Amino acid sequence: MTPPPSPPILLTPGPLTTRSETRQAMLRDWGSRDPAFIALTAELRRRLLAIAAGEATHVAVPLQGSGTFIVEAAIATLVGPGDKLLVLVNGAYGDRMVTIARRMGRAVDVLRWPEDQAVDPASIGERLAADPAITHVALVHCETTTGILNPLAEVASVVAGAGRAFLLDAMSSFGALPIDLAATPVTAVLASSNKCLEGVPGLGFALVEAAALAAAAGRSPSLSFDLHAQWRGFETDGQWRFTPPVQVVAALVEALKLLEAEGGPAARLARYQDNFATLWSGMRRLGFQLFLPEGLQAPIIATFHLPPGLAFRPFYDALAERGFLIYPGKLTQAETFRIGCIGALDRRDFDRLLAAIAAVLAPA
Amino acid sequence: MTPPPSPPILLTPGPLTTRSETRQAMLRDWGSRDPAFIALTAELRRRLLAIAAGEATHVAVPLQGSGTFIVEAAIATLVGPGDKLLVLVNGAYGDRMVTIARRMGRAVDVLRWPEDQAVDPASIGERLAADPAITHVALVHCETTTGILNPLAEVASVVAGAGRAFLLDAMSSFGALPIDLAATPVTAVLASSNKCLEGVPGLGFALVEAAALAAAAGRSPSLSFDLHAQWRGFETDGQWRFTPPVQVVAALVEALKLLEAEGGPAARLARYQDNFATLWSGMRRLGFQLFLPEGLQAPIIATFHLPPGLAFRPFYDALAERGFLIYPGKLTQAETFRIGCIGALDRRDFDRLLAAIAAVLAPA
Repeated sequence: MTPPPSPPILLTPGPLTTRSETRQAMLRDWGSRDPAFIALTAELRRRLLAIAAGEATHVAVPLQGSGTFIVEAAIATLVGPGDKLLVLVNGAYGDRMVTIARRMGRAVDVLRWPEDQAVDPASIGERLAADPAITHVALVHCETTTGILNPLAEVASVVAGAGRAFLLDAMSSFGALPIDLAATPVTAVLASSNKCLEGVPGLGFALVEAAALAAAAGRSPSLSFDLHAQWRGFETDGQWRFTPPVQVVAALVEALKLLEAEGGPAARLARYQDNFATLWSGMRRLGFQLFLPEGLQAPIIATFHLPPGLAFRPFYDALAERGFLIYPGKLTQAETFRIGCIGALDRRDFDRLLAAIAAVLAPA
Repeated sequence: MTPPPSPPILLTPGPLTTRSETRQAMLRDWGSRDPAFIALTAELRRRLLAIAAGEATHVAVPLQGSGTFIVEAAIATLVGPGDKLLVLVNGAYGDRMVTIARRMGRAVDVLRWPEDQAVDPASIGERLAADPAITHVALVHCETTTGILNPLAEVASVVAGAGRAFLLDAMSSFGALPIDLAATPVTAVLASSNKCLEGVPGLGFALVEAAALAAAAGRSPSLSFDLHAQWRGFETDGQWRFTPPVQVVAALVEALKLLEAEGGPAARLARYQDNFATLWSGMRRLGFQLFLPEGLQAPIIATFHLPPGLAFRPFYDALAERGFLIYPGKLTQAETFRIGCIGALDRRDFDRLLAAIAAVLAPA
């Protein structure tokens, strides 16, 4: 047997396969308070904002840590003790926002859909009309749990029409699926370095309406997660309040340059769509079934039913031996596995993956 | 003029100069749920615990983000709503713990010393005897504000003798100054990847008494900062609850192997002591004065008075042009600057730095 490609190809929702230029940007040390790093931070913030056309209305606030940290920081900073958050849930990441807000002692309400259904804007409007205490609404744009795409523009319009603030977890979508802050009313977009931006993990960020953030001084019960103070730090001297992951920042700036060189989010989305189309047609040929109706499936991560007689762990191990890392399912009601379509991969990688899957399934 | 050494040499408290082997460990992608990364995480936790001889009593809980995050997480997880935290303050990092705990709504008391004096164990004992409501005491081992070394063993003994829990911010000391959990009673030691361990920034960790952590289920008001849940995650399936900075983890494991190869913390301390001695004798020769009495100065970061007529910014820029990044002071009551003695540097680097400083100071 030929040795697997080294390093392995990650078919995961992130950390994922990055380009070698991105990783090589981590080969130097940076003084975190040096003008060169201050300039790098300014470039990072500018590039992040530009991706969503937020320059006129929003500010970019990067934060150390995982994607969950930036979600918690946004809730801590924007949802006050007298506010009430309505979370729209059709997967594990919506549920996680509920858990975060409850732990923090915030008032929370939940509207829930099955994991294979998109959230429904009409019923959100009804709930907002029925409960004037709700001040904020939170949505996961693309639920990594299944890969389902929620209707961002419609939900944003309903929430803005009802005069409420809108928090968008765009963790799995930012950088590929369109998010246009000049056209779509969103109070805060939350995402991380290591998904469609194809950076390495270690950094989250919020694009927040400047007016909403300015009104949030001192509100966060957490010093570390106070995005107002983090923002004021950047605006005051260009520096991070607390030690930044300098190499992760450098890798993300490099990844953002590569995104621009590729042609921006539209070109990246086209590549991911091609990846997904290649994957899905090959998987169908091999007898696999998508968990979601095809129209709801974002080209980010695809959930497949595990066929009877195929156990995940040996399937995973056999593919790993061939240099491909797939991802476990996260559903309680069905035996599934997931394959990411994002990262520095193109259809040739998926052709090779499909050949590996076919080899693993072939009778010995 | 000859071009500066590239990349610059960081004379900072971290992020600092790392070894190229450490940075090169970041050149690959890792699946965060793959057995290879689970094994890497287990190695990380084992190596961190071994440095402080905590295997019999403590568990290692790494956490994404900056050093401040792990300090906040330890307070959130270990200090309950009915508890009271006494913070021993002789610098900005002690003050930061006070701010963190107050923001969180925890009861906090402060014992304060001037920034050029070590904390005094006797008065701590008196305060604990006078206030039975105090449940936890927090100390910064080496205050990066000045570089002062606080008397760890004596304070730990007083706190344990009074039957209180003891939180140690060992951010600037862990990996070099001796911390022996088999001999010194400490409930939780908090540190980060990017100081004396000479990893890259992006990761903090706590070494926590297993019994204290086991009693802390569900106590943290923050999901992200819940060290009990983070620990249970590692113990359950070896995985991180939320996306880990995989490259930062890989760099830290490499850095820990290099620490072992160097001869462990004692050998590292000897190198830092040699760095400091080289620096201080040279700086004295050049007419600079240490801010601290020499007996209180740890060989981690040295604070010098800025001589009359020398402004920090042009001094910084002139040294930066020559490839050396020094660090600003953090004192309110004196004009100072700081020079770190830690990182992948030895006395030859300090000889070169001293030559550069002499050249900058020489009359044109």
